[in-house]
Amino acid sequence: MAKGAGMINPAMATMLCFITTDADVSKVEMQEILDEVTLTTFNAASVDGDTSTNDTVMLMSNAKSGSYDRAAFRDALHKIMHFLALEMVRDGEGATKLVTYNVSGAKDNREAEIVAKALSDSLLVKTALYGEDPNWGRIASTVGASGCECCEDTLKISFDTLCVYDRGEIYFDAEMERKAAIVMGHKKFTISCDLGIADGSFKAYGCDLGHEYVKINADYRT
Amino acid sequence: MAKGAGMINPAMATMLCFITTDADVSKVEMQEILDEVTLTTFNAASVDGDTSTNDTVMLMSNAKSGSYDRAAFRDALHKIMHFLALEMVRDGEGATKLVTYNVSGAKDNREAEIVAKALSDSLLVKTALYGEDPNWGRIASTVGASGCECCEDTLKISFDTLCVYDRGEIYFDAEMERKAAIVMGHKKFTISCDLGIADGSFKAYGCDLGHEYVKINADYRT
Repeated sequence: MAKGAGMINPAMATMLCFITTDADVSKVEMQEILDEVTLTTFNAASVDGDTSTNDTVMLMSNAKSGSYDRAAFRDALHKIMHFLALEMVRDGEGATKLVTYNVSGAKDNREAEIVAKALSDSLLVKTALYGEDPNWGRIASTVGASGCECCEDTLKISFDTLCVYDRGEIYFDAEMERKAAIVMGHKKFTISCDLGIADGSFKAYGCDLGHEYVKINADYRT
Repeated sequence: MAKGAGMINPAMATMLCFITTDADVSKVEMQEILDEVTLTTFNAASVDGDTSTNDTVMLMSNAKSGSYDRAAFRDALHKIMHFLALEMVRDGEGATKLVTYNVSGAKDNREAEIVAKALSDSLLVKTALYGEDPNWGRIASTVGASGCECCEDTLKISFDTLCVYDRGEIYFDAEMERKAAIVMGHKKFTISCDLGIADGSFKAYGCDLGHEYVKINADYRT
């Protein structure tokens, strides 16, 4: 079970998630596996870039099964936490779209994470999603402004399988814009950025920013 | 002269500023002084947290005056650049308020800068400004989530001269909320956070986020 809405940019700081199991696993291993899986699920998700004061993922076991396979347990935990993290973003305040930012080819995994999160938190990218505008320029400039190693001669940008920018070549005529706008109209799609530098990769999950987010958060009173 | 609007979070990367002088100053000194003054003026200003691709501040001299006093030149340059940077934020896309985030008592100046910029770029803080809601909780949680050294027992938060939170004491009854809401109704005010740790300080400049920003940036087409 997980609950989110706004103030979502978990660094495990009002996001609440409770997971129960009957696997016979030690506390130390539970914490290790939970930390590992949280990094690529809840900590890769953002609604508004604001970390809350009590983000929580709690994993509890009654150890009743009497058995435990670490790899299988890790995979099962990843599957459920990935599903819950994405459902939380989809349910974000004012969100109408769920977008995966698939960053690859970065100098290392940490730089890929920085680029992916810069994209999921950029107001210009989030408002372009809301406007269903395949604005690859805002994506390219956010990648560049992230401070990570990148170059226009090695960068590739795609909307789902549609490559709009390929290492300096811009494939963005009226026909391509029409096709890209169809992708942007979906409730769920992927924006991929291959930086073409090395092998670092990370997937972050974000949503659009529209009038409903402003309405909810400007009208709310403490 | 300076031009801004959106995509404003200068790290000198569509913010354009041109300054002319007749001071007889060497190129090396001009660059040194310009770098120093830019840090606390244009690079302390944010409309939407998105650094653009061609932020520029250009300082040109014809050296016709035949004289130059470094301290006086630096002060004059700071005065004009501070004025232009604030005018640019006030003119930001959809902005209705100009807010100074005055962070003091931080571990060092760098941590004060990180906290001040976290506040100016927080969507929750920006929408609270738009809603004219003196939501000190969103401010406290943004300070805490910045990753900088801070503690609820040493933190003070004020709206202009009105202290609403003082080292664990919450001065926020109905009367205080009424007074704080009056401050928030102004077109220009200061939010001060004294972290109470050491002597680091920084002032950042930001604006609110309302429907007009979403409208401009979701409707805009490349």
